[in-house]
Formats: sequence, structure tokens, C-alpha cells
Amino acid sequence: MTSEHAPEQTPEQTNGAPLARYLASKRVGDFIFLSGVIAVDPARRLIVKGFDDIPDDAADLIGRSGEFSSDIKQGPILAQSWFVLDAIRRIIESEGGQMSDVFKLVQYFRNLDHFPYYSKVRQIFFPDEPPISTIVEVSAMLPSTDILIEVEATAYLPLNKGN
Amino acid sequence: MTSEHAPEQTPEQTNGAPLARYLASKRVGDFIFLSGVIAVDPARRLIVKGFDDIPDDAADLIGRSGEFSSDIKQGPILAQSWFVLDAIRRIIESEGGQMSDVFKLVQYFRNLDHFPYYSKVRQIFFPDEPPISTIVEVSAMLPSTDILIEVEATAYLPLNKGN
Amino acid sequence: MTSEHAPEQTPEQTNGAPLARYLASKRVGDFIFLSGVIAVDPARRLIVKGFDDIPDDAADLIGRSGEFSSDIKQGPILAQSWFVLDAIRRIIESEGGQMSDVFKLVQYFRNLDHFPYYSKVRQIFFPDEPPISTIVEVSAMLPSTDILIEVEATAYLPLNKGN
Amino acid sequence: MTSEHAPEQTPEQTNGAPLARYLASKRVGDFIFLSGVIAVDPARRLIVKGFDDIPDDAADLIGRSGEFSSDIKQGPILAQSWFVLDAIRRIIESEGGQMSDVFKLVQYFRNLDHFPYYSKVRQIFFPDEPPISTIVEVSAMLPSTDILIEVEATAYLPLNKGN
Amino acid sequence: MTSEHAPEQTPEQTNGAPLARYLASKRVGDFIFLSGVIAVDPARRLIVKGFDDIPDDAADLIGRSGEFSSDIKQGPILAQSWFVLDAIRRIIESEGGQMSDVFKLVQYFRNLDHFPYYSKVRQIFFPDEPPISTIVEVSAMLPSTDILIEVEATAYLPLNKGN
Amino acid sequence: MTSEHAPEQTPEQTNGAPLARYLASKRVGDFIFLSGVIAVDPARRLIVKGFDDIPDDAADLIGRSGEFSSDIKQGPILAQSWFVLDAIRRIIESEGGQMSDVFKLVQYFRNLDHFPYYSKVRQIFFPDEPPISTIVEVSAMLPSTDILIEVEATAYLPLNKGN
Amino acid sequence: MTSEHAPEQTPEQTNGAPLARYLASKRVGDFIFLSGVIAVDPARRLIVKGFDDIPDDAADLIGRSGEFSSDIKQGPILAQSWFVLDAIRRIIESEGGQMSDVFKLVQYFRNLDHFPYYSKVRQIFFPDEPPISTIVEVSAMLPSTDILIEVEATAYLPLNKGN
Amino acid sequence: MTSEHAPEQTPEQTNGAPLARYLASKRVGDFIFLSGVIAVDPARRLIVKGFDDIPDDAADLIGRSGEFSSDIKQGPILAQSWFVLDAIRRIIESEGGQMSDVFKLVQYFRNLDHFPYYSKVRQIFFPDEPPISTIVEVSAMLPSTDILIEVEATAYLPLNKGN
Amino acid sequence: MTSEHAPEQTPEQTNGAPLARYLASKRVGDFIFLSGVIAVDPARRLIVKGFDDIPDDAADLIGRSGEFSSDIKQGPILAQSWFVLDAIRRIIESEGGQMSDVFKLVQYFRNLDHFPYYSKVRQIFFPDEPPISTIVEVSAMLPSTDILIEVEATAYLPLNKGN
Amino acid sequence: MTSEHAPEQTPEQTNGAPLARYLASKRVGDFIFLSGVIAVDPARRLIVKGFDDIPDDAADLIGRSGEFSSDIKQGPILAQSWFVLDAIRRIIESEGGQMSDVFKLVQYFRNLDHFPYYSKVRQIFFPDEPPISTIVEVSAMLPSTDILIEVEATAYLPLNKGN
Amino acid sequence: MTSEHAPEQTPEQTNGAPLARYLASKRVGDFIFLSGVIAVDPARRLIVKGFDDIPDDAADLIGRSGEFSSDIKQGPILAQSWFVLDAIRRIIESEGGQMSDVFKLVQYFRNLDHFPYYSKVRQIFFPDEPPISTIVEVSAMLPSTDILIEVEATAYLPLNKGN
Amino acid sequence: MTSEHAPEQTPEQTNGAPLARYLASKRVGDFIFLSGVIAVDPARRLIVKGFDDIPDDAADLIGRSGEFSSDIKQGPILAQSWFVLDAIRRIIESEGGQMSDVFKLVQYFRNLDHFPYYSKVRQIFFPDEPPISTIVEVSAMLPSTDILIEVEATAYLPLNKGN
Repeated sequence: MTSEHAPEQTPEQTNGAPLARYLASKRVGDFIFLSGVIAVDPARRLIVKGFDDIPDDAADLIGRSGEFSSDIKQGPILAQSWFVLDAIRRIIESEGGQMSDVFKLVQYFRNLDHFPYYSKVRQIFFPDEPPISTIVEVSAMLPSTDILIEVEATAYLPLNKGN
Repeated sequence: MTSEHAPEQTPEQTNGAPLARYLASKRVGDFIFLSGVIAVDPARRLIVKGFDDIPDDAADLIGRSGEFSSDIKQGPILAQSWFVLDAIRRIIESEGGQMSDVFKLVQYFRNLDHFPYYSKVRQIFFPDEPPISTIVEVSAMLPSTDILIEVEATAYLPLNKGN
Repeated sequence: MTSEHAPEQTPEQTNGAPLARYLASKRVGDFIFLSGVIAVDPARRLIVKGFDDIPDDAADLIGRSGEFSSDIKQGPILAQSWFVLDAIRRIIESEGGQMSDVFKLVQYFRNLDHFPYYSKVRQIFFPDEPPISTIVEVSAMLPSTDILIEVEATAYLPLNKGN
Repeated sequence: MTSEHAPEQTPEQTNGAPLARYLASKRVGDFIFLSGVIAVDPARRLIVKGFDDIPDDAADLIGRSGEFSSDIKQGPILAQSWFVLDAIRRIIESEGGQMSDVFKLVQYFRNLDHFPYYSKVRQIFFPDEPPISTIVEVSAMLPSTDILIEVEATAYLPLNKGN
Repeated sequence: MTSEHAPEQTPEQTNGAPLARYLASKRVGDFIFLSGVIAVDPARRLIVKGFDDIPDDAADLIGRSGEFSSDIKQGPILAQSWFVLDAIRRIIESEGGQMSDVFKLVQYFRNLDHFPYYSKVRQIFFPDEPPISTIVEVSAMLPSTDILIEVEATAYLPLNKGN
Repeated sequence: MTSEHAPEQTPEQTNGAPLARYLASKRVGDFIFLSGVIAVDPARRLIVKGFDDIPDDAADLIGRSGEFSSDIKQGPILAQSWFVLDAIRRIIESEGGQMSDVFKLVQYFRNLDHFPYYSKVRQIFFPDEPPISTIVEVSAMLPSTDILIEVEATAYLPLNKGN
Repeated sequence: MTSEHAPEQTPEQTNGAPLARYLASKRVGDFIFLSGVIAVDPARRLIVKGFDDIPDDAADLIGRSGEFSSDIKQGPILAQSWFVLDAIRRIIESEGGQMSDVFKLVQYFRNLDHFPYYSKVRQIFFPDEPPISTIVEVSAMLPSTDILIEVEATAYLPLNKGN
Repeated sequence: MTSEHAPEQTPEQTNGAPLARYLASKRVGDFIFLSGVIAVDPARRLIVKGFDDIPDDAADLIGRSGEFSSDIKQGPILAQSWFVLDAIRRIIESEGGQMSDVFKLVQYFRNLDHFPYYSKVRQIFFPDEPPISTIVEVSAMLPSTDILIEVEATAYLPLNKGN
Repeated sequence: MTSEHAPEQTPEQTNGAPLARYLASKRVGDFIFLSGVIAVDPARRLIVKGFDDIPDDAADLIGRSGEFSSDIKQGPILAQSWFVLDAIRRIIESEGGQMSDVFKLVQYFRNLDHFPYYSKVRQIFFPDEPPISTIVEVSAMLPSTDILIEVEATAYLPLNKGN
Repeated sequence: MTSEHAPEQTPEQTNGAPLARYLASKRVGDFIFLSGVIAVDPARRLIVKGFDDIPDDAADLIGRSGEFSSDIKQGPILAQSWFVLDAIRRIIESEGGQMSDVFKLVQYFRNLDHFPYYSKVRQIFFPDEPPISTIVEVSAMLPSTDILIEVEATAYLPLNKGN
Repeated sequence: MTSEHAPEQTPEQTNGAPLARYLASKRVGDFIFLSGVIAVDPARRLIVKGFDDIPDDAADLIGRSGEFSSDIKQGPILAQSWFVLDAIRRIIESEGGQMSDVFKLVQYFRNLDHFPYYSKVRQIFFPDEPPISTIVEVSAMLPSTDILIEVEATAYLPLNKGN
Repeated sequence: MTSEHAPEQTPEQTNGAPLARYLASKRVGDFIFLSGVIAVDPARRLIVKGFDDIPDDAADLIGRSGEFSSDIKQGPILAQSWFVLDAIRRIIESEGGQMSDVFKLVQYFRNLDHFPYYSKVRQIFFPDEPPISTIVEVSAMLPSTDILIEVEATAYLPLNKGN
């Protein structure tokens, strides 16, 4: 758990060389803190740019229309929303928890007009009680302006619960 | 406690239909985490835009001059600053705490030239030891560019203290 | 511990008059929360703008080239990166901890093209396991647009460890 | 049938004074040509700006989420799309035809990022064979920059069919 | 009838060499379709830029004030509006019809603030039942940014009527 | 004939799933109306961006210089011009007509400085009497800003002629 | 005579509390100097934005067309021009003079393209010998960017004449 | 003395038709007030754009270099400065006074970088005690953006002195 | 009284060499006219940029907070407002009058958002009946864009009163 | 050979007064160095702006289409390219050399999209081995923004070759 | 040696068809002049955009960090700097010289903030006495805005030295 | 002769540590090539920003007016022009030549409106036959945007002449 925006990493992927010098998540007391997650796949060194960069069933789930012109417009934010929240889910699960343990999200957008798209995807990941939430629009995120959203999650997972 | 930027809500206001899917605040261990608060009144679906949108005594307290031209300029940031901090106060109090239990603020501005106005209002809410503070200027906040400030507060309220 | 962007202050520096009304850091349970730190020296009321505003050995350590044209370009971000991280180190140490107790950084940039410079400096301060990290580019920070970076750190320092 | 962007008008609405000097539609041979339609309600001299300006059942049909922040973002384009296409429907029906007689649409957008929203609404009005279509993004439309979309429709309605 | 924006041409004007390769108008069935018309005088290779470029009686008719500062502001759009509509009139008449046979106008503006000026001139050319109309603001038109308006007209002129 | 910007489609290409919901062309009476055509190849889901995306003989025909720097500048507009006009040709031919049956073109540009390039290509497709023509510069077209030109054609093809 | 942009005030309107601290006009020797006047109605705390904010007969007098699209464009400047000049007239009359005593105007515009509209209205107020005049375009005026024009008038009214 | 920016006018020039409705100057008590003067020659309906538009000896006097590239840069402001101040001189002299009677100048610039050029010319017209002076940069002046400077002068010329 | 923006000058300050060629003030009949005053100290050739450039007691009087971040934001406009009005006061007093003799102010701002700050300072200088007032926002003032405000005052001081 | 951008001059043209103080070309050893050449005709003090400003046979040679709209777009760069290269040719020939002695060109463009046009013209002047070449896009050139290209040539012409 | 930005070319690469019409280098007397070199690989028709486009050992030599986010930021300028200087080296060596024979560099940047990166790479190629140097920032270079740097080198290589 | 923009250097100034890695000038055969010179004083590490940064007699020679507002506008370009040309003179003289040996100048400006100022200063340094000259406006120069001009000179100084 060492690359900058790599929500998960297996030894195969990084070959011992971290993509960046920082942790993807860290348990501190009863909390799991996560680095801000963006839609970059560290294994493929790929920035997610549309429906083609995520699994087909995910694309269908979050609203791929099949229309070329619609999907080229809504694809980037929908796919990144899914990728980022799914990455958070996997990190939390690797810590022994689950999505409902995430109690707080700080969400950075490049363009807040994207919010309705993101909101629909978030509802899929938090079907019950939603987390507390802060949302702002910033100028840019790493590694490039293709990144439309970054989400910083915090989970509460008392040690006895995680086991 | 379910609307996006609704710092408080009574059953009357929401009529069972949440304004947005997220929590306004959540206790986690000894902490109370709050969503970012903006100057939107959920009951009236109203964005606070000036002195006319807050109580008269609050407007006078924070520096309404009575001059039309001055107040049209300083009114938006002063009124939003008061509304946001007052909303935080009410949330904390509903959790059994008080403003001095808030130990950290992250403050997002649309324009940092507004800082002196906000700073004066914050001093009214934190007359004694102030909280730790982070302040940045962002491009925009939800729901529209009329929003000039968003404040994310965190309070420390050990369970035995809250009672 | 009261001025806005003053990471540390001795009585001599502030002469009893706080530079701003807020805390530089606060212990809450086992955590040490810090205000966002920027490269302003409260004793000199000086914004760090280049290598000349930090100690010579620090300037050499972080890559001063000695070329006038290169250093006028890379100096501001390198010097601010060093100043900010060094200030965080001093605050943590004044609380009885050390840099490795910092487990989380939220980093705001004025221009993310500065990231490679900052990243090199951060590696000096975190030679071993790095903290979790969130990085976004914002429009501006206090007190002026000369500020290129603001870092908000959180440390975990259980009371028995701090002693 | 005389006001600039008034798709239909009853004598009560215009009181004999045309809102603007042009026809909303005109039969020429077997064709019905329509003026470009925008989301202005001539009876109320109102520009449609969101879900509140259209009937409730229409708002629900086209995707009102009930979330304040989402609906303030997606409301304007969804509501205008519905209003404009519904106005076209009523004009065609007043000529004795129906929506499937519309064989061509020229669609002007202020922002083509709105296309996925519009596309969903259009599908409701053209559930079967869609019309031919031209879509471009222009700088502005009458009467003000609140107008997000203008649609110019042409229908084919041989006289014997219309009866 | 061959130059790009030349609504009419006599053999003398073009000397056998077309100004551009396209038709100014074409009869197709009972319709007369016209190319988009702009305020360029092909005989003089001149873009109409003000009252001085149109006949004096036309200038007076459409509102020349005689004030230097007013006319330098309103002259360009008023003169181009007259020139364009007058050119359409002449084309229609050369086909054996008249202005009232024009049933549809698509009007492109460089700046929709010009609409009130254009609207007054159009009323002179269509004193009775006005045509159906679509109006949008575009970025530019040929041949240069001096062009403020382009109008594409369509007329219905059954062959037996034209004779 | 169902995808948004797909000038032609065979069953193989769409596999039964339309790329978008609209018709590429439609006969109405004696007319063939076409949707606006852009340089997107539906079979390859590819936006034409230069000489490499069209057949070699077409590239040579329309002026490929073989110089890297020249072709990277003039390639996009030349190749899109050819692709769009060739697509129109194929649609008309599939209806039983030919290019000379096209009597009207509405042409949208992203940048009217591209006109001389387009004009040369159009002359190849209309060597004899050119169609009537309207040309404006718009802000953008679907699906992305890579699209430099969109052409909406109309043909007159009386039924007895089409056979 | 005390509010910033309040050309006249009755005791009822201000209720003893001045809208701003300055005089609307002042006699100095034989001169009457006026503050810059803008189109704000102090009684209603209303910025004049169109024909609806002035009396009907004034709207008709200065050129209301009755067309929705035209009037939404030309209404703001025409209505503000009338309101401002009418306010000046009332102030002068309250001093015992009349419009022809105004000998000098300094006129600030937000957009000098508005000049022809303003000029027509000014002619109504100064049907005979016009005053001397200075006109410039500035960036903004108080209280907000809705203000399109500000006029500063000076009158000559020897004391024996005013009686 | 009736045209908008016409500092002087003979009957021949205006032929009885005023260029605009306002006075170039007016005596009020012991004062001569002037309208703002710009570099427009009413007789020739010409905006002064360089050395070629003023007399040769004036051009030489104010610094024409004879170098094409220098004079195309400095010519517009130098020539306009001379023209405007010379026009003021002639108006004052026509009232029986002289340049030293001008005691106040309000000077509007399009670009304050032009000040050193203007200042040198002003010194020629006011070789002895200079007038009081206000200088600001505005967005534009009438009649077009070619105007670089407008000067409003006021003179004191007691009646017994003017004789 | 000869430098451009030098509200007062002693022989020591200018050493016989005027800073610029114009008068700071001039008596004309019963009036005292002043040049536009900006916050430049001619003795120190210094543009006032904050609280440090004015006397300490003045800084405290007009609202210095002592907070670094607040004062760096509000300091420039507050300090310039004080400096400019104080300079006007001194000029008037040197003419034998006092602030209440100033009956008219024309105030130019670089940014009208500064108005509330200026308004508070002006109230200190005009505690009783305020002067008439015109306020506009301009692009720039001399000598540089650091200048935020320029004030042109006029006083009425009949000769028998001045003695 | 003395004017700034005058590639050649006869005594008649300059009448003994140089247009600017510099040499058009200079022999230094075996080299001929040339000043940067732009499309200004010193005899006519004319900036070349299109086909009309160069000889007819040159215009035809470099691609004048005869279409008004095409030539108004491509004319400026084509005509300037020809003028500049032809001027270089004449200077070299006046030194006793020929175009093939030019071995190096530095070419400055205002807009590199013009390169394909320039490249075609350059090929006419260098039909055989081309010179070495550097090409960049700059912000502007003397004397005005109408200048689209400036070319600095260097030739190698050993003295014995030049004879 | 014939393509526009092709620093070297083998017969295989160009297949007899030059990429552009100009020389990469030319000996003139004792000098070797080079065309401006950019980071385009003619064999692959590829613009160098990062570390992946240059050899691995070169990437490591010039500072590849291995961090995804850092390398995506600093990669483009570092890789282009290496590619360009290495191309110059190969050209010089093909002429029989070496890097130290290059005595002059003119360096064009798209963004001078890149200078520190370039400077480090240049030091590798010129470890001893550096060449004379001119550096400016230009708007763009051929063939596209991906090009960040262009370097024009000149070498002195007397013929007897080259052998 | 080793610092980037240091036109001259004594051992004292650089203390053995070059300011940058390149030569200020170099003799190659009969030529002296100079690096581009900017107005930076290496001894003081100072960018020349006005008359105060050059000797008094030089300031007077090149046109210091003594007026604060004029000199703050014209000072930067006049002082930099003098500094740069004087630095070139000293380099040439240190090589044993003189200013008249400079035969070529390439001059880069940040703003070509500065040309008339520069031209006057250049005339002082080249009172007789001027050099050949190329002038362009670029976006920026090293080390910062305070640099307004950079001049690259080349001199011809045959070895026997230099002795």
C-alpha cells in the first residue's frame, strides 16, 4: 500500500518498486484513514477515461446508454465515480471492513456540474445510511487534468469489529 | 440528519423526503464529525444571499451598516458566515455539546478577499480559545456559485462529557 | 499556539499579541491535529519566497543549483516545501512526537506542476514509511497568492508514547 | 400563432397583442414548419429554469431526484428539454398531427455536455423511430443566456393524413 | 447565381468568373431555397459596415439618427439588416415571387444584443404576417468577423403562382 | 439508419444495437433529408483526426503534402471534409440518387479559417453546379471538440427519378 | 437627501434611517451639484432592470416594443436611462429649477454600445439646447453590475432665479 | 456648438444638421465648462489615428521620429493628445480666453502606459503653471475603441477678463 | 503644489524639482478645486500598500485587526482610504478651510468590493453632513495598479470664510 | 539599406530620409546577413494584407482561388509569404548572389496554423535543396499585429563567387 | 537530411520521400549550422511526450523518479530536453565533430518554468565549458503544442579539425 | 564569462561559483558571438526595474523626466534598454572591439509598444551606421516577467583588427 493513487496493489503489480511514496490507507486506533483516491489503475498505469476502462457490468450498472455521443459525454465522470468508490470498497474490505464502515467522504470535483452523475453512483455503493460528506470544486488533481474526481474516505472499524 | 447541506432538519421540513442522501453529522467514538456546511436553509430551499435572509439581530450583530451600497457588497459573506457557524453550533448542541467542543475547522472560500469579514464573525462564535484551522480558496461549491463559504467542523465530545 | 499560519510561537515573537485567532495544533485524545501550515515566518512577518528565506544548509539540501535563472524558478516551491514540512516537524516535536508519527497529510497546491519539487523534499522528511496523502490544486491560499502550498498534517501520538 | 418563442397561444394569453412578430408554425404544402422553440412560457412571460417551472408529473418522469444539489444542477436542462419537446408536441397536435410526424430536428445547445440529459428526454417523446437530427453548440439564444436549448422541428403531414 | 454570399449578380459584375462556387438560390419543386445571405456587395467586393454603405433613403428609413456617436454604434447592425433582407427580397422577386412568399427564416447573429435593431428592420420587410423564425448566436460567419448577421430564407412559390 | 453521426450502417457494424437513437436520412415526399454528418466512423467508433484515418488515395487526392509539419496542421480539416462529404455521397447513393441531387448544404465549422481547405474538397464532390450553401462557425459539435465540421445536406429526388 | 443613490427621499421612505451617508444634491453659491444618480429606487430598495420597473406610460414613451425578446434586450438600458434622468429632473425641480437649468452631464456607462438607446431618452428630457456632456465606459458602478449607467448632473440656478 | 465630440464647428461643417445633441462648451457665471473632447474631426468625420491626421508642423513638434515602426506605435497617442489639447485651446480662445485660463483637467485614458507621451504634449500647451488634474484609465470612450484619450477641461474667465 | 499625486509638498521634499507638472489644488473664485488624490507619499516616493505605511494610531483607528491574514487583505484599501482623505484634509486646511467645506467627492475605485471599507473610513472624516458623491470602478490609475482608490474633492470656501 | 523593415530601397523611395535606423543587409566576410524581413512595402508605407497588395501573376502563382470567402482567409498569409521571400531574393541578387545562396532561415509566425500556406510558397523560391530552418510562433512583430510572418535569412556568398 | 524536424535520417526511414523540405544541418565555411531541433522522432513519426519515448538508461540518467505522479509532470520536459540535445550530438558527430564544438545555442521554450529541468539535462551534454546561450519563451512550435522546447545549435568545426 | 545573463564578471563578483553554466561571449574565427543579454546585474543579483537601478547620468541621458508618474511608466523599458546595450558595449570592448563592430542584433520584447523607447536608446549607442536587426515580441524571458527586453548581438572583429 504504497503508491500515490493506487488504491490496491499486489506484489506483481509494483514489482517491489512503489509507484509513489505514500500509503493508500492506514489504521490508526479504531480508524482507517485513506489517501485521496483517483481513477488511476496502477497495474496498467492507466487513467480511467470512460466506460471502456471499467468492467462491462459496472458500465451497464451505472448507466451506459450505448449511444456514442451520450456516452462520450457522461462516460468519463460515471466511470471515474465507479472506479474510485469501488477502489475504496476494496481497500476497506482488505482491512476487514465494509462500505458501511466508511462514515466520512471528502469529495473534490473538477466541475461540480458532474455532481448528479456522481451522486447516482454513490447511491449504489451506499444504499442505506449515507456517510457525512464535504464537496468542493478544485482547479486540478494529480496526475493530470483528465482526473475529474478525487475522494478521501475515512472509516471507523474498531479492532474487535474488524476481526 | 440526511440532507446534503441541511445542517438541521425537523420532520416538518423534510416531510419524510430527504433533501439529499448523506448525514449532516455523525458520532464516531468520542468524535462528532460534520458534513461541510453551507448557507442553505433546507426548510425554505433558500440560499442565503444577504442580511435579509438571516434574523435581524444577527445582521446587526455582525455589522450591517444600513447603507444600501455597503450592505449589498458585504452582506453576502457576512450573512453566510453567520448562517454557517450558527448551523454548526446548533448541530453540536443537538449532540449535547457546545461550540467550544469544536476543535477543528476546514474552511473553503470562493474568494479569500472575504476572509476579514468571516474572521470577525468567527470571533463571535469562538470568543475564547479558537479551533485549529485550514483555509483555502476553491473554484466552486454546491449547489451554485452563490455559495461563498463552506465549513467542515469536527468536535471532540467524549460520551461522558456529552451527557 | 494562536496565530493563523504560525506553526510555532515563542512569547518573544508575538509580544503577547496573537498574529491570528486560532490554534496551530491541538491534542484531542491520542491525536495531534494541526492547522494548515504555510510558509510564513511569524517572527519576521515574512512570506518565504525563495532560497534566501531559509537556512543555507536547507537550501543546499533540497537542491539549490547556484544558477540565478534556475533558482529563481525552482526556489519558491522548494523553499516553501522545506519550510512547511520543517514547521510541521517542530510542532510535532514540541508535542513530544516525531515526524514518523504524522500519518496523514492533506496538501493544497496553487499549481500541481510543482509536485515533483515538493515530492523530493517530502522524501527527506519521510525517509521511511510515508504518510497517507491527499493532493489537490486550489485557487489560492492565505495570506496572498505568493503562497504555493499549504499542508495539513495529523499525527497519532498515544499519550503514553508522547512521554 | 404569433409570438417569438411562444409555441402555442390562446386569445386570453396574448390579449390581442402579439409577444413578437413571427409565426410559431406554418403549413406549406404537405409540410408543417415550426419556429425554433425555447423554454419560455408566453402566458407567464417566464423562462423555465428548473423542475419548479414544469408540472410535477413531468418532473418526476424525466428524472427529478429530490436531492437539492443534484436537481439544481440537472434541473435546468431536463426541464427545458421537456418543455421544448412538449411544446412541439402540442403545436403538431394543434395541426392535426402527432409527434411521430416530426421527421427532422435541428437542436442548438448552449453546452453540449447537456446532451445526455436531453437525449433521455427526447427518447420519451420519440419512443419508436427517431427523427433525423442535427446538433450544434452555439454561443447564445434569445431571450437570454438562461436558455440552454432551442429546437427547430419539421413535420410531414399530408393534408389527407391530417384529417 | 453562383457566388458564395452574392444574392444577385449581373453578367457585368462577375465578368464570367464566379465569386464562389455555390448557388444563391434554387427552385426545388414548389420551394425556393436560398443560401445564407450576408451583407457583402459582390459588385464592389465590399462588406457593409454602416449607413454609408447603403442608399441614403434606406438609411433614413431604418433609423439613422445623424448623430456621429450613435450612428457609429447602431449603424453596422441596422445597415446589414437592411442589406440582407433587401437582397432576399430581390432574389425572391427575380424568381417571380414577393417577400410574403418567404415563410421561414433562420437567422444567425454574432451578438444577440443586436436583435432589437434587426427586429425593427424585419418589420419593414414583413409588414403583415411574419415568417416562422429561428434565431441563434454563433461565433463567426464568412468572410470575416465584420459580418454581424446571416439570414437563410425559404420561400414557397408554387409554379402556377410564380407565373 | 439509426446512429447519431453514423452516415451509413450495415447490420454487422451495429450488431442490432443502434449507436444512437435517430435516423441518418429519411425520404419525405420527393426529398431526402439527412442528419448532420460528422467525421466519425461508426464501425470503428473512431473520430477522423487526420490523413491516416482515411484511405490513402483520398488523402492524396485532397492535398496530402507528405511533410510532417504541414500535414499535422492541414490534415484534420482536409480529412474530415473528405470523410463527411463522402459519407453524404454514400447515403444519397443508397437512396438511389447521386451527389448532384444534393441541392442544399448547411455547414457548421469550429473555425472558419478552415474554409479554404474545405472549399477545395467540396469542389471535388460538386464539380458542376454547386448546391446552395449556408456556413457559420459554432462553438462545438458532438461528440467532442475534435470535430471540426458538420454538414447537413438535403437532396431532391422525385420518386420516379430514384428508380 | 441623504442616501447614496437615492435621488429623492420622503420621510416615509427612509423612516429616519438614511440609506447611505451622503447628499443627493447641494446648493453651493449659484450652483446645484448632484451626486451621481443610478437607477435604484430607494423606497423599494429595487434596482431598475427593465420596463416593468418603471411606469407604463414612461415605458411606452421610450420605445417599449411589446416583443418579449426585443424588450428583454433593450429594456434594461432604456428603463435605467429614463429612471436616472427623471430622478435628476425631480431633484432639480425640488430645488426650484427645471431640466433646462442642468448645463453639464458626466455619464458613465457599463457598455458604450448602449449609447444610442440612452441618447434617444436624453433627447426627450432635453428637447431644446442640450447640456455639455462627457461620456466614458467604466468597469462597474455601485451597488452591483446590474447598473448600466450613472449620471452626474450640475445645474446653474442663481438664487433669484430659483425663487 | 452642438455636436457630441466636435470641439468647434463652423456653419459650413455641419450644414445646419448637428452631429450630435449637446454643447461643446458653455459659459456659466465666470466659468467656461467644456464637454469631454476626443480626437475626432467633425468636418472630416475622421478619428485621428496618427501623425498623418494632424498638421505636419504639429507632428514634428510633438516628436514624430520619421521611423515607420516607431511612429506607428507612438503616433496614435501623440497625435490624439495634440489634437485634443489644441481643440480645447481653440474653444477657449473662441470664448475670449486663453489656455492659461484652463484651471482643471479630467483626463480619461484607454491605457495609462500612454501617460508619458501625453504628458510631454501637455507640457507644450501649459508651459507655465499647470492646471489641477485627475487621471484615470477607463474601458472605452465614444465613438469607438480607437479613441485613446478624452479630456474634460474647465476654465475660469471672469466676464470682465474675457473682454 | 505641483506634483501629480502629491497632496502637499514642502520645499524640503521636492528640492525645487517638481515631481510632476500640475497643481494639487487651486482657488477659483469661492471654490477650491483639488487634483485627484491617490495614496502616494511624495516625500518618500512611496505608494501606500498597507497599515505599515501609515501612522500607527491611524491604523488602529480605521480597524487594524492585528491578524496577519486579515490585515494583509483589508490593509491596502483601508490604509489608502485613510491616506487619501487625510491628504485632502491637509490641503483644505492649508487653504484655510476644513473638511466640512468639502461639498463634493468623485471617487474612483479599482474594485468596488472595497466600498464598505472605504465607506467606514470616510465616515470618520465626515462625521456630520456628508458631501455629495459619485463613485465608479475604473480599470487603473496612476502611477500603477497598486493604487486602489483616487478621490477628487471640491470645496466651497468663500474668501471671507477662509480668513 | 537603412529602413527597419524595408528590404530594398532606391533613392527615390526614401528621399534621403531613412524609414528607420538600421541596415537591411550587410556583408561580413563571406556571409550576407539580412535583417528580419516583413511584408511592408516601404515605398507605399503599406502593410501587405492580401492578394490585392502583390502583383497579379504572383497571386495566381501562389494559389489565389478567385473565391471571395476563401481568398479573404488565405490571402493574408499567402501574400505575405510571397512578399517576404521575394524581398529576400531581391536583396540577395542586389548583393550579386541568388536564392540558392541562402542557407539558413529563421521564421517567426503569429499563428503556426499558417505553416502549410507558407510552406507551399517557400517551395517555389527554393525548388532544389532547401535551407536549414527554424520556426517558432511569437506574440507579435513590428509594426502591428497585421504582420503574420517575419523571416531572417543568412546567405553564404564568398567574395569571388559574388563577382 | 531533409525533414523539417528530423535531426538525422537513414534511407530506410524516409524511403526516399522527405518528411519536409529543408536541411537538418549544413556546413558553411568553418561552421556547421543546424535547423532548430525538436523532440520528434522521424522514423516513428512520434512526438516525444515522456520517459516512455526515450531509452531507459537515458530516462534514469536525467532523473526519472519512478513515481507515477511526479514523472507525468516532469517527464515531458526532461525527455524532450534529452532527445533534442542527443539529436544535436548525433548530427554534429555525423559531421565529424563533437558536442564541445557547439559554441552557440538559441533555445525556445513553451514555458520558462521548465528551465531548471532543461538546465540539468544540458549540463550532462556540456560538462565542461558551456556554449553561449539565448533563451526565450514563445507561443508555440511546430508541429503541435505538445512541443515544449526547440534548440537551434551552431558549431565551429574548421575543416582540418573535422578530419 | 560564465553566468547566464551576466554580461561581465570579475572574479570578485562570482567568487569562483558561476551564476549559470554558459558563456557570455565567445570568439569563433573573426566573429564574436554573444549570449542574449538581459538587464540583470550579476554583482547585485538585481533585475533592473527603473531609473534608480542605473547610473544617474545614464538616466538623464535616456530621458528621465523627473515626473513620478511618467518615470514609473517609461523607466523600466528605458533603463533596461540602456543597461542591455551598455553591457554589450562592455563585452565588445573587453574583446578589443567597439560598438560599431556589432553588425547584427536580434531583439526580443515582452511588449512591442516599448519599441519607440528602445529605439531612442539604441540610437545613442549606434550614432552612425546601424546594425542589421530582427525584432519580435515573445511571451517571456529568463529569469522572470520583469524582463522586458533581451538582445543578442554578433560582432565582426577580425583578429588583426582586434589588436
